[in-house]
Amino acid sequence: MIPARVEERTSPGRDGVPPSRGAGRLPSQAALAEFVLALGDDSLVLGQRLSEWCGRAPFLEEDIAIANVALDYLGRAEKFYRYVSELGGGRRSVDEIAFLRDSRAYRNLLIFELPVGDFARTMARQLMVDAFHLPYFRRLSRSTNARIAAIAAKAVKESRYHLKRSRDWVLRLGDGTEESHAKIQSAFDALWGYCPEMFAMAGDEMALLDSGVAVDRSAMKTDWESEMKDVLSEATLTTPGNEWAISGGRDGVHTEHHGYLLAEMQFMQRAYPGLDW
Amino acid sequence: MIPARVEERTSPGRDGVPPSRGAGRLPSQAALAEFVLALGDDSLVLGQRLSEWCGRAPFLEEDIAIANVALDYLGRAEKFYRYVSELGGGRRSVDEIAFLRDSRAYRNLLIFELPVGDFARTMARQLMVDAFHLPYFRRLSRSTNARIAAIAAKAVKESRYHLKRSRDWVLRLGDGTEESHAKIQSAFDALWGYCPEMFAMAGDEMALLDSGVAVDRSAMKTDWESEMKDVLSEATLTTPGNEWAISGGRDGVHTEHHGYLLAEMQFMQRAYPGLDW
Repeated sequence: MIPARVEERTSPGRDGVPPSRGAGRLPSQAALAEFVLALGDDSLVLGQRLSEWCGRAPFLEEDIAIANVALDYLGRAEKFYRYVSELGGGRRSVDEIAFLRDSRAYRNLLIFELPVGDFARTMARQLMVDAFHLPYFRRLSRSTNARIAAIAAKAVKESRYHLKRSRDWVLRLGDGTEESHAKIQSAFDALWGYCPEMFAMAGDEMALLDSGVAVDRSAMKTDWESEMKDVLSEATLTTPGNEWAISGGRDGVHTEHHGYLLAEMQFMQRAYPGLDW
Repeated sequence: MIPARVEERTSPGRDGVPPSRGAGRLPSQAALAEFVLALGDDSLVLGQRLSEWCGRAPFLEEDIAIANVALDYLGRAEKFYRYVSELGGGRRSVDEIAFLRDSRAYRNLLIFELPVGDFARTMARQLMVDAFHLPYFRRLSRSTNARIAAIAAKAVKESRYHLKRSRDWVLRLGDGTEESHAKIQSAFDALWGYCPEMFAMAGDEMALLDSGVAVDRSAMKTDWESEMKDVLSEATLTTPGNEWAISGGRDGVHTEHHGYLLAEMQFMQRAYPGLDW
């Protein structure tokens, strides 16, 4: 079943993209499904990673908070996947989309699949991701696709809370003890090169720009860099240089960690096909 | 197809068990299959664990050596599982037995499923296991079941080499630097309570004792303890006390690590059912 609002993808462009650029070009249903799938994969994979902290976070309140953040991502993934399922006429269930693909078919950005590492590593990634997600979902909440806009609007509220948390933690760890400072600095150094991928537009997404379904992530990089510099500086941390960058997630080319994550995440659905809760 | 030598399980007892004890009691085919399955599970699970070192061992020769030891275990598992498959009339393939069971159906002793930890942890476990396996497989190589005896005979040769290696490493790490001494001592302290299970006879096995198919592991504990004491003392290490002991593997009650190990180990067979190399 194709939802009613999908035809809106052909409406005039927004976000500063002149409608003329897209005149006569209709983004295909396939491009839309790929775009939504990628957003679902980002959410599922990061939610799975954060859930690894459940029962292991430094103290009880943090344990509960981080589990709640994980649930935000898993809930978001479910919404995106349900839409993907509907776009495909219901041929694949949400669980099949989430759990029965192999690594190459996942479209998540690499930064989401990296191991949680220590708590500093986890929070450094969160800051990078949250500082991207908040403005990104703000823009996406004005998507011409009402279904995407609604999921994004909820994500804005969540991201605002996520960013407050990760920002506080980075300040606390950076401007904390010598050990905490060293750990979070090394976390930023290790993760920095995964960030440019957040601002690299994928082919499917480009096709959805003109119609105002997607938003131009590449235009958001400068603001993100300024914000990161501000927070890192306040946290007495050094902003890493741009010596290296890695990408591939949107094309299904993942790190070695991805397969292990899938093995663990998919076990129940693979061992008990059709399993339902 | 039931192999020809299985009827030998009804022959008189060995290993000091008077034949009279088994008079009139025939170990069932099911007990035999369970016994062989457990030996296969021990081998598969430890082989899987050791394979985690592949490409990560401290230096190249050690990397190759440890991968070879892992292959010894995987090869042994294949032989035991093939026999299990035949005992079951070929209804389950070797791959199905190895990869398509859930945690509760695995019979491996707990010590085999524990994470590899650091290199000292890995080698402490190997010493404990190798010092048990060498005399155990020597006895099992005289099993009245020719199929089991043949697999055990090959395992004796492998275990002799394994024990030489692990003994050398324990001496080298225990009588090495302050750091290596501390690491291997803490490894023995952490693992010691998993060892009594190696000498606890399971029900299926008891049923196979009188016929001389199985051997009495419980009678081997004193010698093992003496040998461990000798090696640890030579390595300037303290033999841990017997304050705690844990068991459950032979009943399918495993540690939390077991499910993660299975998830990783079974991924290919679960994702691509019927996959063959």
